Amino acid sequence: MFHEIDKIETLMEAIPYIKKFQGKTVVIKYGGHAMVNDELKHDVARDVAFLQFAGLRPVVVHGGGPEITGMLKKVNKKSEFVSGMRVTDAETVDIAEMVLAGSINTDIVGLINAHGASAIGLNGKDGNLVIADKMLADVNENGEVKKVDIGYVGEVKKINAGLLNSLLDNGYIPVIAPTGSDGKGGTYNINADIVAGEIAAALKAEKLVMLTDVKGIYGDHKDKSTFVSTLNSEQAKKLMDNGGIDGGMIPKVNACMTALDAGAGKTHIIDGRVKHSILTEIFTDSGTGTEVVK
Amino acid sequence: MFHEIDKIETLMEAIPYIKKFQGKTVVIKYGGHAMVNDELKHDVARDVAFLQFAGLRPVVVHGGGPEITGMLKKVNKKSEFVSGMRVTDAETVDIAEMVLAGSINTDIVGLINAHGASAIGLNGKDGNLVIADKMLADVNENGEVKKVDIGYVGEVKKINAGLLNSLLDNGYIPVIAPTGSDGKGGTYNINADIVAGEIAAALKAEKLVMLTDVKGIYGDHKDKSTFVSTLNSEQAKKLMDNGGIDGGMIPKVNACMTALDAGAGKTHIIDGRVKHSILTEIFTDSGTGTEVVK
Amino acid sequence: MFHEIDKIETLMEAIPYIKKFQGKTVVIKYGGHAMVNDELKHDVARDVAFLQFAGLRPVVVHGGGPEITGMLKKVNKKSEFVSGMRVTDAETVDIAEMVLAGSINTDIVGLINAHGASAIGLNGKDGNLVIADKMLADVNENGEVKKVDIGYVGEVKKINAGLLNSLLDNGYIPVIAPTGSDGKGGTYNINADIVAGEIAAALKAEKLVMLTDVKGIYGDHKDKSTFVSTLNSEQAKKLMDNGGIDGGMIPKVNACMTALDAGAGKTHIIDGRVKHSILTEIFTDSGTGTEVVK
Amino acid sequence: MFHEIDKIETLMEAIPYIKKFQGKTVVIKYGGHAMVNDELKHDVARDVAFLQFAGLRPVVVHGGGPEITGMLKKVNKKSEFVSGMRVTDAETVDIAEMVLAGSINTDIVGLINAHGASAIGLNGKDGNLVIADKMLADVNENGEVKKVDIGYVGEVKKINAGLLNSLLDNGYIPVIAPTGSDGKGGTYNINADIVAGEIAAALKAEKLVMLTDVKGIYGDHKDKSTFVSTLNSEQAKKLMDNGGIDGGMIPKVNACMTALDAGAGKTHIIDGRVKHSILTEIFTDSGTGTEVVK
Amino acid sequence: MFHEIDKIETLMEAIPYIKKFQGKTVVIKYGGHAMVNDELKHDVARDVAFLQFAGLRPVVVHGGGPEITGMLKKVNKKSEFVSGMRVTDAETVDIAEMVLAGSINTDIVGLINAHGASAIGLNGKDGNLVIADKMLADVNENGEVKKVDIGYVGEVKKINAGLLNSLLDNGYIPVIAPTGSDGKGGTYNINADIVAGEIAAALKAEKLVMLTDVKGIYGDHKDKSTFVSTLNSEQAKKLMDNGGIDGGMIPKVNACMTALDAGAGKTHIIDGRVKHSILTEIFTDSGTGTEVVK
Amino acid sequence: MFHEIDKIETLMEAIPYIKKFQGKTVVIKYGGHAMVNDELKHDVARDVAFLQFAGLRPVVVHGGGPEITGMLKKVNKKSEFVSGMRVTDAETVDIAEMVLAGSINTDIVGLINAHGASAIGLNGKDGNLVIADKMLADVNENGEVKKVDIGYVGEVKKINAGLLNSLLDNGYIPVIAPTGSDGKGGTYNINADIVAGEIAAALKAEKLVMLTDVKGIYGDHKDKSTFVSTLNSEQAKKLMDNGGIDGGMIPKVNACMTALDAGAGKTHIIDGRVKHSILTEIFTDSGTGTEVVK
Repeated sequence: MFHEIDKIETLMEAIPYIKKFQGKTVVIKYGGHAMVNDELKHDVARDVAFLQFAGLRPVVVHGGGPEITGMLKKVNKKSEFVSGMRVTDAETVDIAEMVLAGSINTDIVGLINAHGASAIGLNGKDGNLVIADKMLADVNENGEVKKVDIGYVGEVKKINAGLLNSLLDNGYIPVIAPTGSDGKGGTYNINADIVAGEIAAALKAEKLVMLTDVKGIYGDHKDKSTFVSTLNSEQAKKLMDNGGIDGGMIPKVNACMTALDAGAGKTHIIDGRVKHSILTEIFTDSGTGTEVVK
Repeated sequence: MFHEIDKIETLMEAIPYIKKFQGKTVVIKYGGHAMVNDELKHDVARDVAFLQFAGLRPVVVHGGGPEITGMLKKVNKKSEFVSGMRVTDAETVDIAEMVLAGSINTDIVGLINAHGASAIGLNGKDGNLVIADKMLADVNENGEVKKVDIGYVGEVKKINAGLLNSLLDNGYIPVIAPTGSDGKGGTYNINADIVAGEIAAALKAEKLVMLTDVKGIYGDHKDKSTFVSTLNSEQAKKLMDNGGIDGGMIPKVNACMTALDAGAGKTHIIDGRVKHSILTEIFTDSGTGTEVVK
Repeated sequence: MFHEIDKIETLMEAIPYIKKFQGKTVVIKYGGHAMVNDELKHDVARDVAFLQFAGLRPVVVHGGGPEITGMLKKVNKKSEFVSGMRVTDAETVDIAEMVLAGSINTDIVGLINAHGASAIGLNGKDGNLVIADKMLADVNENGEVKKVDIGYVGEVKKINAGLLNSLLDNGYIPVIAPTGSDGKGGTYNINADIVAGEIAAALKAEKLVMLTDVKGIYGDHKDKSTFVSTLNSEQAKKLMDNGGIDGGMIPKVNACMTALDAGAGKTHIIDGRVKHSILTEIFTDSGTGTEVVK
Repeated sequence: MFHEIDKIETLMEAIPYIKKFQGKTVVIKYGGHAMVNDELKHDVARDVAFLQFAGLRPVVVHGGGPEITGMLKKVNKKSEFVSGMRVTDAETVDIAEMVLAGSINTDIVGLINAHGASAIGLNGKDGNLVIADKMLADVNENGEVKKVDIGYVGEVKKINAGLLNSLLDNGYIPVIAPTGSDGKGGTYNINADIVAGEIAAALKAEKLVMLTDVKGIYGDHKDKSTFVSTLNSEQAKKLMDNGGIDGGMIPKVNACMTALDAGAGKTHIIDGRVKHSILTEIFTDSGTGTEVVK
Repeated sequence: MFHEIDKIETLMEAIPYIKKFQGKTVVIKYGGHAMVNDELKHDVARDVAFLQFAGLRPVVVHGGGPEITGMLKKVNKKSEFVSGMRVTDAETVDIAEMVLAGSINTDIVGLINAHGASAIGLNGKDGNLVIADKMLADVNENGEVKKVDIGYVGEVKKINAGLLNSLLDNGYIPVIAPTGSDGKGGTYNINADIVAGEIAAALKAEKLVMLTDVKGIYGDHKDKSTFVSTLNSEQAKKLMDNGGIDGGMIPKVNACMTALDAGAGKTHIIDGRVKHSILTEIFTDSGTGTEVVK
Repeated sequence: MFHEIDKIETLMEAIPYIKKFQGKTVVIKYGGHAMVNDELKHDVARDVAFLQFAGLRPVVVHGGGPEITGMLKKVNKKSEFVSGMRVTDAETVDIAEMVLAGSINTDIVGLINAHGASAIGLNGKDGNLVIADKMLADVNENGEVKKVDIGYVGEVKKINAGLLNSLLDNGYIPVIAPTGSDGKGGTYNINADIVAGEIAAALKAEKLVMLTDVKGIYGDHKDKSTFVSTLNSEQAKKLMDNGGIDGGMIPKVNACMTALDAGAGKTHIIDGRVKHSILTEIFTDSGTGTEVVK
């Protein structure tokens, strides 16, 4: 490698971008296709390792819905959903925690470290990283919104930012499974987008980058010409009200706004199916997906 | 509590023991009955939390054989053993890692933290804590010992003691699942006793305490009067040669010797079925189980 | 010791209390019967040493009126008092300093260290710990209050909190004799309760615990049923006005209010005649004496 | 930049090289054509800046013979040489110092900083960086070697490595003009190759890279096929004895050996006329010029 | 030395002054006769070294107008002035930088270090110490003030106080040549008084001491009886308006006001022709020249 | 002060001496006439304060025999001596400790601090500074040397150098009363010369300076012409054997040798009756008294 001058030239071009972000914290919500496709998995791991070598402070938060469903199937446990959220009994939360913390998380950590960086896997219980409370589901019943108990599903109460900063200061990349501790030894399953937003908020991250399986946000999904490059909070709320933003995109946009409200710099919803989309987002002026700003 | 003078007196009696061990590292191999029985689990968690409050630096290494076997059964995967070691194909090592890191480990961390301490779960991949190589099994075939490949079973090549010390310095209790990283993203399953010994060695721990389901070591199992309180390396080797120490006790004694050779202080094989056996061992002159010394 | 499970259980019960106060500063005003009775002296020394082992930051301020009177008698010097304060000429202040710093203070330091802790004796001159000004006595003459010069009796002008924190950070227990420096090499004798209050104030201590020879504060001394468990500043002032609090209790309550005004947590007036009253106060929910709060 | 995937790929390829050298000190002897040609000057400045951004610790030592000669000419001062060394009277050493420290050095510092890095110019007097003694010239007179005084020409007596490490630790790139202090306010002019070697020695640098105007070392200059890729000390001495290495190459090879003897890692004599030769040398396996090893 | 008691007494008298200024930053504008006369040069160097030994944090900013003019003459370059400022073309700014940074600066550093202290020479480019913008000259043309481009003459935009504090913390004395960086590798020549004022401002120096060739400020130059010991900002502005302060004294007084506005303690305009005027100013109650205060 | 140039010159002359000793530890044994005479007391305090301002690390060890005898007389207690050592019963050791720690020590601390420095008084119990064992007296009975118990007289077993270095690092001057702790709360009285020697040894002090009431050591007391400027260990032993050194000078010379054996730099026995003898010794080439070297 690097035998030819033009490759060196490419390195040189990166200087201003590297300089701009050295020492800055970047939270990456990792999920979707990029976590399933084998080649993309390696690429994301290399991207994250590169961020560390270039002097940034990357933090990864991953999801795992499909893998949890897969394991439940294997042990003959059916998945039930209310308002798009998994009903989570004691057995289910145990399996969810096991898959998230013991399979997906260890996998990502192994891949990042295989590229020479030094990642450490965490979940909500580690050092009380994520203290959570039970969250009730909103169920629309005859036009009335009712609160329904769907089991061990949690919402974030407190993040131990000190633990993350101490690991980052010592040169480790935290890789976080989206669970929460009830403070008494029990576990809550939490939406990974929400966890990523709360962590970016607690760290006052320079950037929150959310990998999705779409190009970004559209004013109208069916009309590609309505693609939105930049969106502020007000516009985002309007789009959520009128249904332009819906389904799984809602927690993502909410996570961005949580981070921004707490003082994070910029947030980005990008297409994880595109090779090196993380580096392209950070090391490019134009960027790729939709930027959500305050 | 503490309303009566004699309870305060008990606290006062603890002063010399606390003073003696403040700032010292104690590695606890946690396994067997104490990891299955619900009440004992809580007691061990409290014991470990107490060690931290009293100013010691506890490190926990846990096993998980029965739980792995249980999960394999659940997903209809048979367990096969060669020379007492589990034949570990790719699917098996994935399930082993998942159970160890995602279920047993998170459980222990949650329980310790429920007592107010601050534990962090780790496995061999985290920060390259345990770098491992493939280990072949010794199979005795017609009097000849042959090396047999039994899959993803590893032996410890290198421990990242820096990571553990940095966590301990920051007031966290490392809780370690016995897996190893192959440095390329892959996992090895490793005997937990061996991992505990190597970690005590790498940390030059003051003490290595191994919880078992027996009272300690006997010259002859069948004769309770042959109980051994203190054993030095030479005596231990002799007992292994003549079969006085056999089966699962062999890796435990070997772990003790690994730790001692590297400069650890003292090692103890104690009865995990007895309530508070960890604290009794550390905060008592007489001790309880068998002490293995250099 | 500790051979029996129930003793270990007692240790375990202490966890939440130890956890609550680890790293917190506790100022103890030591005086009265507990400083005279040989057995109580040893008990207080052990209590203070235990606080250090349990991770608290104890600071001791002691008095010494009776011992000063004793030494003055030995050298045939009479003690004279005005409004309850000792008239302190040059010879008297020299003897007071000598007894406080050279006899009582060294004694306490020796006893604490004999229990394995590491105390350091200080007086107001050491590192300019207590800078003082001359204090005049209020004398009621025919209903008019007149200021009278009673010699080398001082009031606190400035505390060198930096010195105390630096010693505490390095694991030493400051034991302080209640004298003050005039900044020119000279000494003032100061009321020990006042010094304790000012030191608790300067350190913004978590607790100020004052040992007395009574159970606490009563609405009416003669009626045991009027015992007051908790007292706020307003109530305290009212009790001082109507004589419910009088004599030597006045500077104690004033010291509590000085500490509270500066941001100290809680203050306690407890019975030093009761064995282990310090530990009982700190490691018990109910407490024992009178708590003075803001 | 970076809009296309293949550019990102180039960045990714650099990871193992960056990782290998992060935190390592690299001393660059900068001189010759690369210091005269305007485009090469900018390239070298960018290369050095890139080394800092990539986490290395670069140190630059520059020469300046031609520029000194130029300035002497401007002020009508003739240059005289003995055994290839400039006869340096008081006026000459003043002009040399002025040109080296006030013109060449400030230029290089300005260019490096224009690329976003943070360089600091130093000369031998700054913080007593280079303490020097007078050096006599060896003059061959009728087969006898005589020592001749040629004025203010020095040899290195002591390097203040502490100053350099302190600047590097704080994120500054030291750029060093090759002068020495006589400890009394006076200046010596010193061969820049020698200074570079001594500084690499004092810092136990990972690498010493010397820019020259040739491809490297040849067994025989006239025969391009005799190019030497790797040379050990013994071979180097032999080549110097038999004239294979001669002229200005001698101090360069000597500097390499000084560095190696003191524990530096590797030394390289490379072609400064080639664009990005510094980065190519460091970030390539094959390397380019001649490597001198122990 | 010191053999006689009265010399020791003199040392003792210095205690309160040394104590008062230990750890305080003093910026010295060095210029005029004291920079030309050989004996005064040594004295100033010793004074500065003494400040360091006595525990102060001295920073030196020097000028160099006459030396620049001298060198320009040597290379047959004429000096042209507009409104008292040198018209500075590319060749002139190169020569100015060379003389300031390569000759005057190295000289001062060498002399200070010859007295055992540890000075480091800096100019505006080093670590981006002084970032500057082009400054236009005000030219009075027929009563109208016009802005005229006089080349590479700059005004201070930003000072890197962090670099200076880091050097001072490590025991080095910064000696600063008055140039500025344009951020792109180019140089501006800047009035040394202005640089000294900006540096005292950026450091919030305890004192700014400006060496001049007069006794201080007079209400009327021609009347020695109008000497002003203390001058506040308002009075200074009035004197500048009515011509009492004019010529080269204007930037000096402006520099004082810049420093004071930013929070510097006191500023002094003193007579550099008097031996040890720096120490006399700092270590004397009465002082010597004119003190400019807020 | 300092108004005249020649006083500034005196300061300047001190530079090389100050530079030589900055950061170095100097232990001063303070006793004899210099501790009794009021003017000398102030001078010593100023000398010690000056050492601190000049950047040295002074440590003071004082004696107090006459003051102890005085207080014993006041309380009608007779002093008894065996082989020149005070027979020290329980009451005597209490009074000795009280006078040393509570009167002499506080006095010295107050005086030093009155000159703006920051001293802290210590005795052997503080932070277990001096751990001691009982010392028996050698009594010559009919030519036979017998060991006799003379009570609470101790010899040094261990010095807590860490405490002293921590105080010195924080800018405090330790002032030490010569007592020892028996580790159980009890006190030993120890010869102050011996304590000074052991402390200089434990700190590997640059200098140990012992104030006496004579000019130094003579080969023959009666013959002033036999004054010894420098003495090595061998010569010292010879002089002790033949009686040239006797009485109170023996422990002083022994203390010097203790210090030297442990790696202290130089030791000096000087005349404390001469004003500023400490500064003269340290800041003079010639020195004054007798220098004892290895």
